Amino acid sequence: MKPPFAAKETAIKTLGKAKIKSPLAIAEEIQVNQQILFHPYPNDKQKGTPVAFETSQPEKEIYFDPTKVTACIVTCGGLCPGLNNVIRAIVMSLYHGYGVRSIFGVRYGLQGFIPKYQHALIPLTPQTVSDIHEQGGTILGSSRGAQSIETIVDTLERQNINILLIIGGDGTLRAAEKIENEVSSRNLKIAVVAIPKTIDNDISFVSRSFGFETAVDSATNAIQCAHTEALSYPNGIGMVKLMGRYSGFIAATAAASQRDVNFVLIPEVDFDLDGKNGFLEVLKKRLQARSHAVIVVAEGAGQRFFENEDKDRDESGNVRLKDIGGYLKQRITEYFENQNMQINLKYIDPSYIIRSVPANTNDGLFSATLGQNAVHAAMAGKTGLVVSIWHGVYCQLPIRLAISQKKSLHPSSRLWISVLESTGQPSFKN
Amino acid sequence: MKPPFAAKETAIKTLGKAKIKSPLAIAEEIQVNQQILFHPYPNDKQKGTPVAFETSQPEKEIYFDPTKVTACIVTCGGLCPGLNNVIRAIVMSLYHGYGVRSIFGVRYGLQGFIPKYQHALIPLTPQTVSDIHEQGGTILGSSRGAQSIETIVDTLERQNINILLIIGGDGTLRAAEKIENEVSSRNLKIAVVAIPKTIDNDISFVSRSFGFETAVDSATNAIQCAHTEALSYPNGIGMVKLMGRYSGFIAATAAASQRDVNFVLIPEVDFDLDGKNGFLEVLKKRLQARSHAVIVVAEGAGQRFFENEDKDRDESGNVRLKDIGGYLKQRITEYFENQNMQINLKYIDPSYIIRSVPANTNDGLFSATLGQNAVHAAMAGKTGLVVSIWHGVYCQLPIRLAISQKKSLHPSSRLWISVLESTGQPSFKN
Amino acid sequence: MKPPFAAKETAIKTLGKAKIKSPLAIAEEIQVNQQILFHPYPNDKQKGTPVAFETSQPEKEIYFDPTKVTACIVTCGGLCPGLNNVIRAIVMSLYHGYGVRSIFGVRYGLQGFIPKYQHALIPLTPQTVSDIHEQGGTILGSSRGAQSIETIVDTLERQNINILLIIGGDGTLRAAEKIENEVSSRNLKIAVVAIPKTIDNDISFVSRSFGFETAVDSATNAIQCAHTEALSYPNGIGMVKLMGRYSGFIAATAAASQRDVNFVLIPEVDFDLDGKNGFLEVLKKRLQARSHAVIVVAEGAGQRFFENEDKDRDESGNVRLKDIGGYLKQRITEYFENQNMQINLKYIDPSYIIRSVPANTNDGLFSATLGQNAVHAAMAGKTGLVVSIWHGVYCQLPIRLAISQKKSLHPSSRLWISVLESTGQPSFKN
Amino acid sequence: MKPPFAAKETAIKTLGKAKIKSPLAIAEEIQVNQQILFHPYPNDKQKGTPVAFETSQPEKEIYFDPTKVTACIVTCGGLCPGLNNVIRAIVMSLYHGYGVRSIFGVRYGLQGFIPKYQHALIPLTPQTVSDIHEQGGTILGSSRGAQSIETIVDTLERQNINILLIIGGDGTLRAAEKIENEVSSRNLKIAVVAIPKTIDNDISFVSRSFGFETAVDSATNAIQCAHTEALSYPNGIGMVKLMGRYSGFIAATAAASQRDVNFVLIPEVDFDLDGKNGFLEVLKKRLQARSHAVIVVAEGAGQRFFENEDKDRDESGNVRLKDIGGYLKQRITEYFENQNMQINLKYIDPSYIIRSVPANTNDGLFSATLGQNAVHAAMAGKTGLVVSIWHGVYCQLPIRLAISQKKSLHPSSRLWISVLESTGQPSFKN
Repeated sequence: MKPPFAAKETAIKTLGKAKIKSPLAIAEEIQVNQQILFHPYPNDKQKGTPVAFETSQPEKEIYFDPTKVTACIVTCGGLCPGLNNVIRAIVMSLYHGYGVRSIFGVRYGLQGFIPKYQHALIPLTPQTVSDIHEQGGTILGSSRGAQSIETIVDTLERQNINILLIIGGDGTLRAAEKIENEVSSRNLKIAVVAIPKTIDNDISFVSRSFGFETAVDSATNAIQCAHTEALSYPNGIGMVKLMGRYSGFIAATAAASQRDVNFVLIPEVDFDLDGKNGFLEVLKKRLQARSHAVIVVAEGAGQRFFENEDKDRDESGNVRLKDIGGYLKQRITEYFENQNMQINLKYIDPSYIIRSVPANTNDGLFSATLGQNAVHAAMAGKTGLVVSIWHGVYCQLPIRLAISQKKSLHPSSRLWISVLESTGQPSFKN
Repeated sequence: MKPPFAAKETAIKTLGKAKIKSPLAIAEEIQVNQQILFHPYPNDKQKGTPVAFETSQPEKEIYFDPTKVTACIVTCGGLCPGLNNVIRAIVMSLYHGYGVRSIFGVRYGLQGFIPKYQHALIPLTPQTVSDIHEQGGTILGSSRGAQSIETIVDTLERQNINILLIIGGDGTLRAAEKIENEVSSRNLKIAVVAIPKTIDNDISFVSRSFGFETAVDSATNAIQCAHTEALSYPNGIGMVKLMGRYSGFIAATAAASQRDVNFVLIPEVDFDLDGKNGFLEVLKKRLQARSHAVIVVAEGAGQRFFENEDKDRDESGNVRLKDIGGYLKQRITEYFENQNMQINLKYIDPSYIIRSVPANTNDGLFSATLGQNAVHAAMAGKTGLVVSIWHGVYCQLPIRLAISQKKSLHPSSRLWISVLESTGQPSFKN
Repeated sequence: MKPPFAAKETAIKTLGKAKIKSPLAIAEEIQVNQQILFHPYPNDKQKGTPVAFETSQPEKEIYFDPTKVTACIVTCGGLCPGLNNVIRAIVMSLYHGYGVRSIFGVRYGLQGFIPKYQHALIPLTPQTVSDIHEQGGTILGSSRGAQSIETIVDTLERQNINILLIIGGDGTLRAAEKIENEVSSRNLKIAVVAIPKTIDNDISFVSRSFGFETAVDSATNAIQCAHTEALSYPNGIGMVKLMGRYSGFIAATAAASQRDVNFVLIPEVDFDLDGKNGFLEVLKKRLQARSHAVIVVAEGAGQRFFENEDKDRDESGNVRLKDIGGYLKQRITEYFENQNMQINLKYIDPSYIIRSVPANTNDGLFSATLGQNAVHAAMAGKTGLVVSIWHGVYCQLPIRLAISQKKSLHPSSRLWISVLESTGQPSFKN
Repeated sequence: MKPPFAAKETAIKTLGKAKIKSPLAIAEEIQVNQQILFHPYPNDKQKGTPVAFETSQPEKEIYFDPTKVTACIVTCGGLCPGLNNVIRAIVMSLYHGYGVRSIFGVRYGLQGFIPKYQHALIPLTPQTVSDIHEQGGTILGSSRGAQSIETIVDTLERQNINILLIIGGDGTLRAAEKIENEVSSRNLKIAVVAIPKTIDNDISFVSRSFGFETAVDSATNAIQCAHTEALSYPNGIGMVKLMGRYSGFIAATAAASQRDVNFVLIPEVDFDLDGKNGFLEVLKKRLQARSHAVIVVAEGAGQRFFENEDKDRDESGNVRLKDIGGYLKQRITEYFENQNMQINLKYIDPSYIIRSVPANTNDGLFSATLGQNAVHAAMAGKTGLVVSIWHGVYCQLPIRLAISQKKSLHPSSRLWISVLESTGQPSFKN
């Protein structure tokens, strides 16, 4: 990453001047916070040159007349704990906070904007959403895959939508930016505000994405099971595959929390399997010393082992990763057969169990606050932004910044060092 | 099953007359319960001819002198919630209830009796076991596979063991019976008492096996995730594979509890995949009507689809089942591709996550009570028996009866009818 | 208790001959089970004279025409985990199983039948109830207190109700019996079927009441906290008050499960506080030996200490118990002040936290099955009965039998002996 | 609060130059982070004048020779989730990270340093602490109350302790500062490093204290029960008292998370009970409109209602708060009796249940990281400091700053505004 940004790079676009007095009774009191906050950049060597983002809060003046505005919410891509909390908070804030009465949910992600799929909009009220945060998933449904930006904006126009609140990952944020560009080029007054969703926690300038903590929670349960299995058999090996296509945040955080893990393999840190320092040899030594081992592997780790294989893509155009879990299982089994050493390998792939659960308490509050902030920004006429938390402060980023690069786990970061401290694992490089 | 049994078939063998006054202060009071209870046989058409088992409780007189007795505990086979609760209760009851001081744990199942593996016995005291019930697995370790009965009894003799408490499934109970026969033929005074362990709940004359409820608990979590995934995508299908090699108790009970399941496939009820009434066609109709579906499949279901494939066996000699989950996933995917109908299939195989967790409260109490009953029986000099609960009463069965056949889920049983009521699924037979 | 009953005492009343073919497709298959089962009486000394209850299942022929019947459900008294599961299962079974379309919920218990309260009936459909089992409490609301039986039956008549499904405790069952008598004397064809609800598990001939297991689950959490507090301070005492007005089932079961409890005080077993064998002296010895102690006290324990105080009654006419927890806290504090011994007493009264939670998996299945059985009985024209589980078999009891006496925890029962084994507590009697 | 501080006010004291190469293999890589970070002050009106704290991480050079150092850990005051995680991480980091072999736990808080109590030090090794994070409380025990600073330092000298790691709240931090002063005046080389513990989350310049999130988790369970009770009875009121002596963080955060709360009363925001705008009148209107209400009250709220009563103090000299929960219960009951309006008030005081539970996953990781940071600081010879997290960055504060004032919940803060948004409650002031 190459901060700091110039002020203009972090400036948030608006649809126009916000001149309507906000109906939020509390707006008066909180205006003192409306300054721009300075956020330090943790790895920045030039001290004193902080990155600045605009903070996020209810504004004193708003752009849209709540009695005339129509807002819609869409959820895209894979499931993530907290989606329903975000939806609920958006509806509650629009309805109770601002008095907006025309709120719709778009069915099944971006498909919901495309007439041929015939998914009708769902009217949303406080009553329809009041208990949804107790369920995982998204009541609106989701889908993967790109859709025509023009058709989407056509639908927005045809349905007289003024506020588009869009919840999704990397691909969705790219779509959101294109939608905002199209809206802008048609000179429409539609606020496009995104809430970044990534269970992998890999979006730039977003300290923590909603659902991540809950995913780690679920992951630790799977690790505990792997540990139990490993301990219960002679030369027991418990191996868990966790989410993390390009970043090892879930694997590393879960391993640092659940301190029974011995080896963590993530996309950001390369490793050899064979050779004197290779993983298999180190694993063997561990078993000889302690007779059990727990391995956590992020799904995106070790993809170089499949370099010569064909690449497969899903509907969203994401490369389908090769199954490193299955590969490791096979390599470990073969290795110890060759060594004539009996092992008991138990491989756990919790997959969807990690992501389909309801948000835990803390994630629930966080998701809801992001949803509220998205509403505050949109009602104030801001557009082309994502809501974020950065060093503990809720703020707003131009979508462009959020998708400028993937956030990844730096090998000299606090978290990875914690993992190394807790596991004691060496580098696995020959 | 063909009850009723004659009285001699349910009689429990003893090592000799119990003449030592039990140190359990409570023994006096409870003797009134020491009658033989009559247990009705639920599917018995000849009413009035009940099955009789001996009840299980602390006896007034015991056979072994607590100050001289040496007991050992061994856990065999796959993990099951409650193993540590059983171990803990045995140690506590021997130590605090009877004053026994010489208690050992055998490492890694029957391997622990075989000198070549060099697993030393672990001395067990209340202190070593006081918190173990909060962990899943077994602190003693386990293993699969048969071992020489002679060598096992040699070890029992060499270590001066008087009481062998053995926890395991079908194969282990068979081994326990052989051990008891060998002990008996050598004229040794060693009580062999088994606590039946089967996460599948498939042991005869055992209403409920420990750990089963907890497994169902865990399974329902996985089903909830499958339901969430199914609901969140157009034509979403959530499919969960659950344990159950020869019986569908876990699948059926979890489905009956977690009432979002639409299809349950178990070993006891055959089904067709193709054809007008076949599963795939019915699934298609369900999707057309409701646009999502949840499937639960027991691992032992539909094994006839692999009839022509080679049979594989694990170390214990159990046939390795073919992967019905993977097979269904492939068949469903192909079928809807042919139908040109887009689906979103999410397959969850929670595997070890179901069985490696600690026992829940109710299972914890149940496991502990079984452990205590095993101790009471052994201290009274009874042998060759398993402890059981039958129609709500703790009782004792000759090992022979418990392994006489597998308990399976009868298609006209209350439970399966509940499943049919709850899912509304048809027969899937052409 | 004085079993056995003569056959006529356990016979279930019917409104008339059931001649309509049941629409439940499964009815045919299950008729083989329709025999009368014999249930042994566990404490019965005269072996061979079992009690017989009628089993409960879908009948082949039903009494009411599903297209014409109107059913209503009412929940009364204190909350209990599983109420919503019972409601849900009743609606699902009536609607999907039998095709009944006219189903109503009565608001706020028996108040809902009394015109002056102006609580309208709530129409119930599968959609309204599909997710309610994930919440604690009752969606229908509840209330305490007697209401005019005549007015209730007037309302049943006026609303053309044919099936009254009533869920409640001792007082409610008495009301249900009176309602059935009034219905009968007016020669109405209204089936009155009750599902017994008592978190205290104290209804006769009901092995286990729904919600009890979940309550024990919650109670063990509170006990764990008490144990943690006790361990963490010098002479730490953790004391938990649990539900149990006349029976100590929750206290005893939770203590037997959560094996860190040292003293359990229940209504069924008297104890002295003072004197050489009294509780305070024993507690002191425990602290001197181990420096911490955990006490569980049922709310109905030790009521004799308040003998001379005035009696207070709640709206249902139940005597309001004096607060034994507060009394013990005061007596313990004073006692150790007098002994000049510093203690750290932490008193936990989890109260409603025990009962307001959703049912756990196992209780959920159990509650649902009771609800289904109530529907099967009512549709078959049976009346004046409660559904029960007795020795593992679902059966039907005349309401009269269920309220003939309170079930209490016998001091020589398996459960209490388990508590004594696990705590090692003496008798506390001088 | 009146930031910013001058640099010297945030400077951390050291025992001397750290010249020993750190055995932590990772030290080399991470030195790039060792700059001083700038932390913005969120409510600061003069933008551009940030507060600076030193960041916390393993140092390249350390002060103490790991083979010669003796460290001890002490936990003081009330229980808090995560205490055992902190202890565990300290031991693991000292032992595995630095190779320290002489590590002791002090029993029962500061009492453990005072010879007359005769509490021996407990040797701590990785084995003794490996599973303790699964239990609530502190394995070392705790106590309240001041002890002689001289005697404490005498004990440190006598036991040759070089590192004192002290975990506790406000009072304990004050003691820690005095100990450091005494150590300094005696010219001893003992590093005194504190980990601030406050379940109320009320320590200055500590964004979040360990255990707080878990406490909020537990609190939301109690609120859910209150909500269930309130919904289930006519004019049902569920009231929960939560911790928070001087700050309403737990009450406000739990209410913002669990969005069923209608009224939140905290110490920082005054309220009237009587009068037209008073709480009772508003509560009445709520019941008339919606027929149920949920109230959350922090224990320190409304203490002015007891102004004329005598003040009571606990052993640590803290004022014992008057019971606002009991007071509100009585006032509400009386008020509605006078209004002749029937209500159903259920009062829940979860008390110790909130704080005695094990840390949740996220708190577990956080607690452990604080413990590791305390070790890094101490090994580097830093002293008189607390470890903190501030705007997402782990840092170090002079103890003096941390205790300079209580952190409280500002009525115009994000969190309180969230509560107002979610509850819609008015000001309750006449």
